[in-house]
Amino acid sequence: MSPGGRLHVVILAGGSGTRFWPLSRASRPKQFLSLVGKVSLLRATWDRARKLVPADRIWTVAPSALATMVRRELPALRRDRLVLEPSPRDTAPAIALACSIIARNDPRAIAAIFPSDHVIRDSAAFKRAVAAGLGAARAGDLVCLGITPDRPATGFGYLKVGARVKPGVANRVLEFVEKPDAARARRFVRSGRYLWNAGMFVWRIDRFLDELRRVAPEVHAATSSVAGGSKAAWRRAPKISVDHAVMEKASHVSVVPLDAGWDDLGSWDAAARHRSSGEGSGDSRVLIGSDGAVVFGGTRVIAVLDLPGVVVVDTKDALLVLPRASSEKVKSVLEAVRAAGRADVL
Amino acid sequence: MSPGGRLHVVILAGGSGTRFWPLSRASRPKQFLSLVGKVSLLRATWDRARKLVPADRIWTVAPSALATMVRRELPALRRDRLVLEPSPRDTAPAIALACSIIARNDPRAIAAIFPSDHVIRDSAAFKRAVAAGLGAARAGDLVCLGITPDRPATGFGYLKVGARVKPGVANRVLEFVEKPDAARARRFVRSGRYLWNAGMFVWRIDRFLDELRRVAPEVHAATSSVAGGSKAAWRRAPKISVDHAVMEKASHVSVVPLDAGWDDLGSWDAAARHRSSGEGSGDSRVLIGSDGAVVFGGTRVIAVLDLPGVVVVDTKDALLVLPRASSEKVKSVLEAVRAAGRADVL
Repeated sequence: MSPGGRLHVVILAGGSGTRFWPLSRASRPKQFLSLVGKVSLLRATWDRARKLVPADRIWTVAPSALATMVRRELPALRRDRLVLEPSPRDTAPAIALACSIIARNDPRAIAAIFPSDHVIRDSAAFKRAVAAGLGAARAGDLVCLGITPDRPATGFGYLKVGARVKPGVANRVLEFVEKPDAARARRFVRSGRYLWNAGMFVWRIDRFLDELRRVAPEVHAATSSVAGGSKAAWRRAPKISVDHAVMEKASHVSVVPLDAGWDDLGSWDAAARHRSSGEGSGDSRVLIGSDGAVVFGGTRVIAVLDLPGVVVVDTKDALLVLPRASSEKVKSVLEAVRAAGRADVL
Repeated sequence: MSPGGRLHVVILAGGSGTRFWPLSRASRPKQFLSLVGKVSLLRATWDRARKLVPADRIWTVAPSALATMVRRELPALRRDRLVLEPSPRDTAPAIALACSIIARNDPRAIAAIFPSDHVIRDSAAFKRAVAAGLGAARAGDLVCLGITPDRPATGFGYLKVGARVKPGVANRVLEFVEKPDAARARRFVRSGRYLWNAGMFVWRIDRFLDELRRVAPEVHAATSSVAGGSKAAWRRAPKISVDHAVMEKASHVSVVPLDAGWDDLGSWDAAARHRSSGEGSGDSRVLIGSDGAVVFGGTRVIAVLDLPGVVVVDTKDALLVLPRASSEKVKSVLEAVRAAGRADVL
């Protein structure tokens, strides 16, 4: 494979996004929301991709059920660049299918894989990291973009490298580590040898498909059949993440550190952190004695009195009010709404 | 005046009710809301009145701007029993006008005056108190119904009687006392010699009009002119409460204790106290970890997580969220909404 393989971008547009109910629904998951800034997370991902490659080299993978939403959100997406999953089966089959299809178009392609529901504040730093990843990918590495941790988070998997992480270059990955407890997370961050696994990758497609065939042959077989036209083979693809199916077992895995204001926006609290205090506080929002309170959605007049750090999420048919500190517990609300017989608003 | 004078009821249906924004608006004040039970406070007042007298002896005084709302809420109200104030001028002119008009129909009438924005749980006890008041009124007293205090409230005026209050009978009033501070309120309640002034009265109309002429001649002159047909005279009536204008200065004022689950519903917190925990908590309300939280209005799904004692008030074009303990500060929200240029929702 010559170093001249062209870069393609694969945007992963699946995901359920129950954490942002009631703004997100089964029919409109998180990536379609404008949680940070004016455009949706999906559209912002597209805009970043467009700074790397022309539109005809941007591929989007999404469950069939979201096809219309994706097309509406990404009007410049070529119809033949939308890869539809007959049903959601986690990231390994989604990525494998996209890579198989790209390989049929451009066998020497390099793919950069990006989730569509994260925020990245510094697109210049992002572009530099992708460029560094590209170099290592051309040389044959499966490259992760790993987030430089700014706190001992327990909600992410970590990538362990051999020595202190070197910025701006690919570092060999020794180990994928599952979400740690607080004490381990603190040791990880102190050591300077760990990065967060953000599910962003750059690789030569031939290298990825070779590793896939070797370490996850069922995923490879099923998705290459689907790429060849036998849609029914999809159901033989196991539901598994690309980390478990491939990355943890592959050889020549490296990681380029990404320090670009990344956030996976895992909860209302995270989304609230990205709101500047003035944002969305026009003449229809009145917050009194409520520092750190944030209102999402809604065009009505919304007044919050003496409730610091409260989150109000206002939609036409459902309203949620909670303290930012309880953001991780939204799932319990969804269960209660379902139990109350109101699955129609989920 | 023979003891045979017939009882008429006068319902005071004015009042602005900013404390219940956004459920109450300038165009729909508190008395039109179903804050407790299924019917509006005004309608509940009518229903209590109907247990005392037939419909043709129930008079309702309201500002002209509320006439349509009153008629819609009280379909059994005779058109000629609706007394309209050309503009709101507090209780003295409103009551005086109604009494003058009744006197032209029935000069021997006895009037019972009731605000329309209070709640009274025990209508049997209420009826007994009115009956006791009626006896004293026939004898010539201006009778107040005074609430037996269950706490040293600082939000009400007090009526001081000569000795410990005797239940079931009229006690001579020595003094009208303005809202006391907490220490005085505690002394008042401990003494057993004080009742809350609830703005409910029973009197012979001739006695009231005589006292009015003596102690508040401007109110008497203006309102009797209006009753005679010269509506323009209304603007000469001073804005003053019946307590200040008449009761504090009148002779032969007595008070019958009323212990009937009365509440003036002065705030969202007060309204919340009257909600039984199950009330309004159907399949559209999900409260988790939120003891004492109450939702008013709204037909949407409303979920509250980990916010004990919070009040959510949901209307089509405005939403308010606050802790029950901040209920007294709703006025500051209205000011902020006005300052934000959204007086359209006030």
